[in-house]
Amino acid sequence: MMETYRPIEVLAGRGIRVLDQTALPHSERYLELRTVADLCEAIQRLQVRGAPLLGLCGIAGMAVAASEDASDSGLQIAAERISATRPTAVDLGAGVRRALAAALTTATDGRSERLWTLANEVTVAQRAVDEALAAHGAPLLQGAGAVLTHCNTGALATGGRGTALAVIDEAWRAGHIDRVFATETRPLLQGARLTTCELQKLGIPCTLLPDSAVASLLESGAAGAVVTGADRIAMNGDTANKIGTYGIALAAREHGVPFFIAAPTTTIDPGAGDRRAIPIEFRASEEVGGYGETRWSPEGTEAYNPAFDVTPARFISAIVTELGVAKPPFDVSLRGLLESG
Amino acid sequence: MMETYRPIEVLAGRGIRVLDQTALPHSERYLELRTVADLCEAIQRLQVRGAPLLGLCGIAGMAVAASEDASDSGLQIAAERISATRPTAVDLGAGVRRALAAALTTATDGRSERLWTLANEVTVAQRAVDEALAAHGAPLLQGAGAVLTHCNTGALATGGRGTALAVIDEAWRAGHIDRVFATETRPLLQGARLTTCELQKLGIPCTLLPDSAVASLLESGAAGAVVTGADRIAMNGDTANKIGTYGIALAAREHGVPFFIAAPTTTIDPGAGDRRAIPIEFRASEEVGGYGETRWSPEGTEAYNPAFDVTPARFISAIVTELGVAKPPFDVSLRGLLESG
Repeated sequence: MMETYRPIEVLAGRGIRVLDQTALPHSERYLELRTVADLCEAIQRLQVRGAPLLGLCGIAGMAVAASEDASDSGLQIAAERISATRPTAVDLGAGVRRALAAALTTATDGRSERLWTLANEVTVAQRAVDEALAAHGAPLLQGAGAVLTHCNTGALATGGRGTALAVIDEAWRAGHIDRVFATETRPLLQGARLTTCELQKLGIPCTLLPDSAVASLLESGAAGAVVTGADRIAMNGDTANKIGTYGIALAAREHGVPFFIAAPTTTIDPGAGDRRAIPIEFRASEEVGGYGETRWSPEGTEAYNPAFDVTPARFISAIVTELGVAKPPFDVSLRGLLESG
Repeated sequence: MMETYRPIEVLAGRGIRVLDQTALPHSERYLELRTVADLCEAIQRLQVRGAPLLGLCGIAGMAVAASEDASDSGLQIAAERISATRPTAVDLGAGVRRALAAALTTATDGRSERLWTLANEVTVAQRAVDEALAAHGAPLLQGAGAVLTHCNTGALATGGRGTALAVIDEAWRAGHIDRVFATETRPLLQGARLTTCELQKLGIPCTLLPDSAVASLLESGAAGAVVTGADRIAMNGDTANKIGTYGIALAAREHGVPFFIAAPTTTIDPGAGDRRAIPIEFRASEEVGGYGETRWSPEGTEAYNPAFDVTPARFISAIVTELGVAKPPFDVSLRGLLESG
């Protein structure tokens, strides 16, 4: 197992050390988050990101909160505040709720220590989850030749080995694939900035493409499969993921290319029957019309900037989790997976 | 009629003055192209771009060539050199061939003057073409509410009023639409840089979106129609246009949104039966993984960077030209339009 980056480190009792992902690939800069306010800001700015990694941040964030104020009301306020930073990613809220439940069944003066311990346990467990997910997913890519992926789903997204990118790495090591096509992933360019770097560190040949070139690529036959991560999966298989995923799925279906989702079972939301129960986060116009300090649109240009879209279950060939692979009909297979866990 | 920019000016006998479109929106910088080499470089760098405007450049470029060397062989070499700069755009090669034919039927010492006159005539005629195209297309947008467009198809793309953007402007003036959604159009950001500025000058409300958000937008119902330009239309209606157009068409069909092409009849290629006859230009990897001096991918990242894709005729609701609107079946209607012209 190879981890390309270590995006998070739990500094028990003191805070959380995270790799500032907005500074990549130009610099590897780390931030120490010592307060709930620090954490919320880092999440909102996407300095720390990736659905499973946000789950871990939810738990570690509650440990920080317990170090600040371990009372019931103090923890409940912190829980709401952290969860609200990214409404679509189910792992964040689930991590927060898990930590809150653990705290509320512990005496007040033991809560902080209990949550720091939990944060460390979950960090270790995430690595095992990623390994299992990679092992289940890799065989699906047998004979794919090259594979297309979107956004970033590697070590940077989980703190372990990754989700879709771990499946891809495992398939590469098994000789199932020979190249990865990575989308740029506008507006925040997670593919262009992060996935390219992770693939380079893993030694996997990579070709970048503009998001707009996906339909052309899939039509050309150059990629034999698509694998992406997920931010929230409803019980019928409808899957929220980084904006652009749905358009990729449409093109994959049109050209008969299998479309796989890779995500831990924590990303499956038992409370969401289908897409209607998935809230979509809209982000600031300023993220579009430029990147960072470089601006290319007139100042004040308004933008349609949803962070996610939802791919309907019928476009998805299989959902890979650490407990196994779910195939359609997902309303049956996902429930089966969760019950087996 | 309102022209937002004057992207080209024929300086008879001396050269061509073009607006450097790569410098927009930050500065309005003009280039004087005095040699065929100057012109070819400006076209390759997309300092001058847009299918109809390239047609005009083809003619004006041949006028420049005739001022350099008006011999048969001199003109033939220049014709090949200019045509090769952008292989997909049919207007460029057609303009060059038209100028070459006009020159070869003129005595050598009159060729230069003949071609400068032709370049001026075509510049004037383009404005009339754009006006007619806008008038034919606008009624199609009745009741659309908002319309989605891709790349840049305004005055900057034709030297007149534009193609798709002229249709949109006319529909806006008629009260048929109330907003335009404009894609960024990676990698060269013609939508984010140029269309936003033209819409601002026209006073039309504009919302920018990442190319990856198109499927989400069309699913939301926020746009009632799509209108784009074209770089080459085959006789069966298959249409090459800026990379990303095909993906937009897939999403439009999935959500029942009408998808219109707006282009002058010069963009229809009588020599191309269908998409198989349309060459696709691939461009340098450096255009992806950054924009201009700003780089966000590791140095040397390889990219899949086709400048165009082809939208199959079956996804297209209508093709608007200056001679009228062609509807499916396009193999009949396009031939009818060309014969009426």
